[in-house]
Amino acid sequence: MTSFKVGLLGRGTVGAAFAELLEQRADTIEATVGRRPEIVGVLTRSRGDFDEILEASDLVVELMGGLDPARDYVLRALRAGKHVVTANKQLLSQHGEELWEASREANVTLRFEASVAGVVPVIRVLQETLAAAHIDRLHGIVNGTTNFILTEMARTGATFAEALGQAQELGYAEADSTEDVNGRDAAAKMAILARLAFGTPVHLDQVVYEGIEHITPDDLEYASRFGLSLKLIGTAERVDGGLSVRVHPVFLYGDHPLASISGPFNAVTVESPDITEITMSGPGAGGPQTASAVLGDVISAMIPPALVPEPIVKLDMVEDVLSAFYVHLEVDDRPGVLAQVAQILGMQDISVKSVDQRGMGDQARLVMVMHPAKESSVAAALQLISQLDFLRSPPRAIRVIEEEFLSSPE
Amino acid sequence: MTSFKVGLLGRGTVGAAFAELLEQRADTIEATVGRRPEIVGVLTRSRGDFDEILEASDLVVELMGGLDPARDYVLRALRAGKHVVTANKQLLSQHGEELWEASREANVTLRFEASVAGVVPVIRVLQETLAAAHIDRLHGIVNGTTNFILTEMARTGATFAEALGQAQELGYAEADSTEDVNGRDAAAKMAILARLAFGTPVHLDQVVYEGIEHITPDDLEYASRFGLSLKLIGTAERVDGGLSVRVHPVFLYGDHPLASISGPFNAVTVESPDITEITMSGPGAGGPQTASAVLGDVISAMIPPALVPEPIVKLDMVEDVLSAFYVHLEVDDRPGVLAQVAQILGMQDISVKSVDQRGMGDQARLVMVMHPAKESSVAAALQLISQLDFLRSPPRAIRVIEEEFLSSPE
Repeated sequence: MTSFKVGLLGRGTVGAAFAELLEQRADTIEATVGRRPEIVGVLTRSRGDFDEILEASDLVVELMGGLDPARDYVLRALRAGKHVVTANKQLLSQHGEELWEASREANVTLRFEASVAGVVPVIRVLQETLAAAHIDRLHGIVNGTTNFILTEMARTGATFAEALGQAQELGYAEADSTEDVNGRDAAAKMAILARLAFGTPVHLDQVVYEGIEHITPDDLEYASRFGLSLKLIGTAERVDGGLSVRVHPVFLYGDHPLASISGPFNAVTVESPDITEITMSGPGAGGPQTASAVLGDVISAMIPPALVPEPIVKLDMVEDVLSAFYVHLEVDDRPGVLAQVAQILGMQDISVKSVDQRGMGDQARLVMVMHPAKESSVAAALQLISQLDFLRSPPRAIRVIEEEFLSSPE
Repeated sequence: MTSFKVGLLGRGTVGAAFAELLEQRADTIEATVGRRPEIVGVLTRSRGDFDEILEASDLVVELMGGLDPARDYVLRALRAGKHVVTANKQLLSQHGEELWEASREANVTLRFEASVAGVVPVIRVLQETLAAAHIDRLHGIVNGTTNFILTEMARTGATFAEALGQAQELGYAEADSTEDVNGRDAAAKMAILARLAFGTPVHLDQVVYEGIEHITPDDLEYASRFGLSLKLIGTAERVDGGLSVRVHPVFLYGDHPLASISGPFNAVTVESPDITEITMSGPGAGGPQTASAVLGDVISAMIPPALVPEPIVKLDMVEDVLSAFYVHLEVDDRPGVLAQVAQILGMQDISVKSVDQRGMGDQARLVMVMHPAKESSVAAALQLISQLDFLRSPPRAIRVIEEEFLSSPE
C-alpha cells in the first residue's frame, strides 16, 4: 500500500518534536494501521512552497500558530479535500465555524486535540464519547504556565513576579507570557471546549477573562488557612437557558477534582446528569507531549473502521516483579523478635523503609513498610517468618506503590 | 436519509438505560450526525429472534454479558458486516483476539468503551489518542465495588463484611459480588487494557489477581498513619522486555493521582515517556453512565469524517452569574468597621460564610468568604466598600468554587 503523505506547516518546538516522533513511530503505525505515514514537505518561514506541499499531501499538519497565514492555508487544504490536524487555539477560537464548515463541505477530517490541554484527550472525549451527552458544566485548568506559578506561590510563598521568573527559567513560561498570565490563552481554549460541549457557536470575544497578575502571597496564605486551593479556572456552564464562559482565579475546596492538579499540568472536569462527572488530567504543554496529541489525530485520520489491529508483538508474561510491601505481624512481646524478623528479611535482600512496633500487654504488633524487592523473595521471607514460634497469627502483606509522581511540581 | 438501525441484545439495567437514552437523544444525534438512530429489535431471554434482528440492523449492541451465546452472536454480527458495540469484559478478555480478527476481516467497527471503567474514556484514549505512544505502564482502579468498600472502611472503620453489606444496600455491589471482591472482574478489565496499551495478546488467565476479602480495619488504620491510601489496583507494565499484568490491594502514597479516587469511582493512569502521564476518572458503573459510554460508541460508528457538526443551538451568552467570593480588606483597626461592611453586603443580598479578622497595630486585615451571589451585586458591594474611609487599600476579591462534589463517597 502507498504511504500516507503528511505535509507539515511550521517547524518550531512542537513541529520538530512531531517530525521526530512520526519517524520514530512509523514502524508501529504501519504495523497497526496498515499504512506508513511519511512527511512529504515542511513549510517554514524561510523554506518550502505551500502549494507544492498541499498537492503532495493526504493530510496537512498546521503548527504555525497565529491567524495569518494559518487560516488561509487550513481553509485551502480543507477545500482541496485534504485532512487537517492543527494545534492552533487562536485560529479555532476566532474562525472555528468557518473551518468546521469547510471540513463538513469537503467531507474531510479537521482534528485539533493539541489545541486545548495538550495530550489530555478532552477534545476527543467531548466530540466522541460525549457526543450526545447533555452537558451542564465544564471546569478546566487549561493553562499550565499559570498553574505552575500558582503552585509555586502556594508552595514557597513567592510573589507572582518571582514565580513567573522561575517558570520562565524552567521553560514553563515563554519570554512574553502576557496572554498566559492575563487569562486570554485560557479563554481561547474555553471557547473551543464550550463550542464542542454545548453545540453553540462561541467566539473568543464572548469569553470573560481575568488573569493572575494581581494574586498576592496573602491570598495563598488564606487559601491554605481555609483549606482551599487557588487555581486559574475556566468555566463553561448553562445558566438560565443561556451559556456562561469565563476564566478567573478561583478558590477550590480540597475535595474538588481539580484542587490537586499541580505544577504545569492541565485538567478538565465535565459534569452531566448522564455521566455524573469525568475528569481528565495530564501535561498541558511541552513539545513531545503536544506532538503526541498531534500524532494521535493523524493516526485517527488514517484508521480504518476496525480499531483493534492485529497484535504487533508477543510479549512474555512476567510474574515475579519488584514490589514494595507493608508487612503486619502479631507477635509475642519478648526480646529478639525484631532481630529475627530483620535477619530473615536481610537474607532475602529485602530492605526495610519504616517500622512501627506497639506493645499490647504480652502481645505486640509489628508493622513494617519495605523498599521494593522481588515478589518471590518477599514470599520466601513471609514463609520463613510464618514459622517463627513467637508469631500469634499468619503474617499479612500488602503491596505499596511508592514512586515519585510526575504531577508534583518538583 | 434513512435511519441508523440498531439491534439490542439484552435488556437488563444497562440495556434498558441505553434504550431510554437513545430515544431521549435521537433528535440531538440526528441534528449532529445527520442520521437518526432507531432501535429495530430487542432480544431478551424470553423474546425476540436473533436472526431477524441481525438482518434488520446496521449495528448490534450486545449487553447480555457472559460468554454464551454472546460470543456466537457477536461473531455472527461481525461476519455479517454489521458494526458491533459491546460492554462484555468477560467475552473480550477471553475471546478478544477472535472477535477483533473478525472485525478486521469484515472491515467493521467493534467498539467496547463500556467494558472497562464505564464512561471513563480509557478504551478510546488508548486506541486513538495514544495509538502510537510507547506506553510503559498503566495503573487502574477499575472496580467500583471494591473502591467503595475500601473507601467506607477507611472512612468509618467498618470491617470488610460490614462495608460490603453497605455497598449491597446502596446498589454499589450485586447480591453475588464474588468476582468483584476477589479481583477477577478487575483482572478481566486489565487484560483488555493491557492488550490495547501494549499491542500483545493478553488473556484473562494470564492475569495474576488477588482480592480485598482479607483486608482488615487495622490495615486501613496503618494506611492513615503512614499517609497512604489503600486501593485495589490493576497494573500492566513492561518488565525486563516482557509484560506483567496483575491486580492486588495496594497502598498508594498520598500524591499518587489514584490516591484521591474515592467511592464507586474508577480511574486509570497511563505512563509513557511521550506523554509523561495522563489520568482519567469518573463513574465506573451505573446504568445511565454505562449506557452513555455505549451510546458514544454507537455514535462513533455513525460519524462521518468531519467531526464538528453545524451548531445545533444558539445559546445566549450570560455574563452575570452567581459566584461565591473571597474578599480581602486592609482597614483601620477601629470600632464599626465590620458592621459597615456587613451592612453593605446585606443590602446587596450577599451572605457571609466565614470571617477572619486580624489586628496588626493600628491596622487590621478582614478576610471573608461569601455564599454565592450575583456577580453584579458583588461588584456593587465592592464599589461601595472601596469608598469607605477606613479602607487602607482597594478591596481584593477572588471567586470560590464551593459546591459538593460527586466523587466524594457520600
